[in-house]
Amino acid sequence: MVKKLTPMSEDFNQWYTDIIQEAKLADYSPVKGTMVIRPYGYALWEHIQAYLDKRFKETGHQNAYFPLLIPKSFIEKEADHVEGFSPELATVTHAGGKELEEPLIIRPTSETIINHMFSKWIKSHRDLPMLINQWANVVRWEMRTRLFLRTSEFLWQEGHTAHQTKEEATEEALQMLDIYEEFTQNIAAVKVIKGTKSEIEKFAGAKVTYSIEAMMLDRKALQAGTSHELGQNFSKAFEIQYSDENNQLAHPYQTSWGVSTRLIGMIIMAHGDDKGLKLPPAIAPTQCVVIPIIPKNSDSEHILTIARGIKDLLPGIRVHIDDRTEVSPGFKFNEWELKGVPIRIEIGPKDIEQNSVVVARRDVEDSKKPMALDSLNEDIPALLDLIQRDMLKVTEEFLEINTHHVEDMDELIKKLNDTEGFVSCYWSEDKEDELKIKELTKATIRCYPLENTNQEISVNKPNIEGKFVIFSKSY
Amino acid sequence: MVKKLTPMSEDFNQWYTDIIQEAKLADYSPVKGTMVIRPYGYALWEHIQAYLDKRFKETGHQNAYFPLLIPKSFIEKEADHVEGFSPELATVTHAGGKELEEPLIIRPTSETIINHMFSKWIKSHRDLPMLINQWANVVRWEMRTRLFLRTSEFLWQEGHTAHQTKEEATEEALQMLDIYEEFTQNIAAVKVIKGTKSEIEKFAGAKVTYSIEAMMLDRKALQAGTSHELGQNFSKAFEIQYSDENNQLAHPYQTSWGVSTRLIGMIIMAHGDDKGLKLPPAIAPTQCVVIPIIPKNSDSEHILTIARGIKDLLPGIRVHIDDRTEVSPGFKFNEWELKGVPIRIEIGPKDIEQNSVVVARRDVEDSKKPMALDSLNEDIPALLDLIQRDMLKVTEEFLEINTHHVEDMDELIKKLNDTEGFVSCYWSEDKEDELKIKELTKATIRCYPLENTNQEISVNKPNIEGKFVIFSKSY
Repeated sequence: MVKKLTPMSEDFNQWYTDIIQEAKLADYSPVKGTMVIRPYGYALWEHIQAYLDKRFKETGHQNAYFPLLIPKSFIEKEADHVEGFSPELATVTHAGGKELEEPLIIRPTSETIINHMFSKWIKSHRDLPMLINQWANVVRWEMRTRLFLRTSEFLWQEGHTAHQTKEEATEEALQMLDIYEEFTQNIAAVKVIKGTKSEIEKFAGAKVTYSIEAMMLDRKALQAGTSHELGQNFSKAFEIQYSDENNQLAHPYQTSWGVSTRLIGMIIMAHGDDKGLKLPPAIAPTQCVVIPIIPKNSDSEHILTIARGIKDLLPGIRVHIDDRTEVSPGFKFNEWELKGVPIRIEIGPKDIEQNSVVVARRDVEDSKKPMALDSLNEDIPALLDLIQRDMLKVTEEFLEINTHHVEDMDELIKKLNDTEGFVSCYWSEDKEDELKIKELTKATIRCYPLENTNQEISVNKPNIEGKFVIFSKSY
Repeated sequence: MVKKLTPMSEDFNQWYTDIIQEAKLADYSPVKGTMVIRPYGYALWEHIQAYLDKRFKETGHQNAYFPLLIPKSFIEKEADHVEGFSPELATVTHAGGKELEEPLIIRPTSETIINHMFSKWIKSHRDLPMLINQWANVVRWEMRTRLFLRTSEFLWQEGHTAHQTKEEATEEALQMLDIYEEFTQNIAAVKVIKGTKSEIEKFAGAKVTYSIEAMMLDRKALQAGTSHELGQNFSKAFEIQYSDENNQLAHPYQTSWGVSTRLIGMIIMAHGDDKGLKLPPAIAPTQCVVIPIIPKNSDSEHILTIARGIKDLLPGIRVHIDDRTEVSPGFKFNEWELKGVPIRIEIGPKDIEQNSVVVARRDVEDSKKPMALDSLNEDIPALLDLIQRDMLKVTEEFLEINTHHVEDMDELIKKLNDTEGFVSCYWSEDKEDELKIKELTKATIRCYPLENTNQEISVNKPNIEGKFVIFSKSY
């Protein structure tokens, strides 16, 4: 049964939760704060993995796997790191029927264990760069959780690299940020802003944190991925040393970078509507659903045969033929709209007479139009491309319309309190002011955008000191 | 530096550990009993995953992800299950800075949490069969560990299904066993025996456990995969009920099945030699390594250019050009033999003059022979196929030679104590006798082979009661 979703305008959070449950993306698990990723949600994760894994390998990275359980003393080796993660750690105290001598932490992230291993593997400049990625689960005990966005356990990838020079590490961190942007924009069809985090918001243990920030349909920000320059913080804490070309010992410069199942939350909240999900074709598990329309007293077998044959007309497209007889076409329309399938093809006796089908786009209202069966193999792939581009464009325009520029602190506070959306300004980088804004508006610095963003170009830089910044409430 | 491996004949276990470390398949981690899977070992796992995941999907299964942490009370719901796993559990008692009200168990396997979710998802016969697979890490706290074979954490896949009838569940369990056999034989090139476990050796909570058993080069058995018929044990314990076609409530029949990173241990121990790994072409991360031979005063650029060009002659083959200048060809030969690359191509000035290369097989000693450059694109793929088939054949013959048939209990005990290898006989299925054999010989029932195995065909069934069985020492 397709239940009525809570309308987005009525309660955005409830709309989000309804969609996840009704479209069977995920379910609550009996352990507080954790979730079950159901097959339809996991299929999205598999597409995310396939794309990113390919790009990581093309840029020279190799996958490996490090232990889930980390000695507590490891977490404590890097001072900022332990401070950042302490409140969220889950601890194993007993195993194999005995109390452990040293408690083990379930990894909240793997910098510590990976850098311990790097200290064994990196001996010479010939071992550098070391470019490792891991696909894994991590646990961060969260007080307030939300499906996909913030759960006590989540799936992610974490890249960890070591380089001879600071410049190489910077280049690596920015390269991976670019790959994340490429994924969100070209595959997930969500416009993002690339930038640098403030000192307050950066990763515990990093010198510089870069992020990509997306705007959700409720105009809040979602941090979709991060890439960190770690400097020599961890290589010093874990005593990673190599002998360089002149036989001098040196500590490498490092990076780490990650995206998670949170990206699924982003896709839901950047594209959906009151009918359900809208999935970009590049990531949709089903790109095209075919629904046979069988009026009473018509030759159902004939219609079904032609409907099933459409799959063969569309090689390389992920097509599903919904030939269920126990539910009506109207029921099927609702269900596949809920599931966000980009293209629906209807085919009934009249269409067959005219050697055509009726095609409807999920991303655009009232888009039904006929399409000739003979040219489907060209028209459907072209339409999928168009939908992909249009969906990105919609998020670009939405971001632009809902980003406001202000000139001073009072205006900033007023704008953040009165309006949903991103607010840009030139900012002194003062930490106390940043905390004051958070207290008064609940908004934080999302990022200092990297140069040449649309946001910055569209405003005149005033004659004041400061760095172009974006504030927003966020997930 | 390539270190000398301990010879297999001198100390098989040390040989195994040496290979893993020297070929950089895995490394010890600082947490006792756990390991780090290094990129070369992880690449093998990725090939295992790619093959099996495709077959699981082709047979109608979908991937999903369930939580790592399971309430302790869940584990206790199925009586045999908790008894089987209790000694190996790792327990989280504290999280987010507080003691938990109910301790959480790190999954040793996911029957309990998955069947809890099934009880929410399965309501009607239309929801069946439910065919779910999960790729995940699990933790079983082991006292005596060995890299890949038995570690406190390992990676695996676990399939969990629910069906209307017992027959369907049996069919499913056997289908998955067949897929595992297909993988080990066609991809890993290791002959296996399919069979049923004894009551004593079966999975805690199963009605019937099927397994595939392989023979390692030290003639011990390795259980390479298992598939279980769970009957209604878990569907009753977790109250999974559906209404059937007649609106009657019924408990489904279930299966679960899994293989793990242990398969990597199998590949090492079924194929290697004193020089290192021998990887079957279908799973080798590098199938063909090209080593340019550059004598002093020769035109090194010319040789290197031709060597690098070989990659383009072999589309679809995983080719690596080893163009390092800081190490000698002999060093490279040793290194790639250690890493088990199936084919080595050498190319030097004389070969270039004759428009040919020298090709050596890793699986056969003294196999160097010339091959014309012009026909490489046909000859190399054909040779890879031949190597794949030959490697399987070697394991088939080894298994046959090292399987001995006995006629009575005394002979069984004597054979198991005096000889390495499998010992077959007709067996009463008496539990006390089975335990006695284990005590006296350290061997266990590996399986009751499914019908028509070579082993059974080759002996005359005597006029005694009993079931054809295979005993062996095992990993």
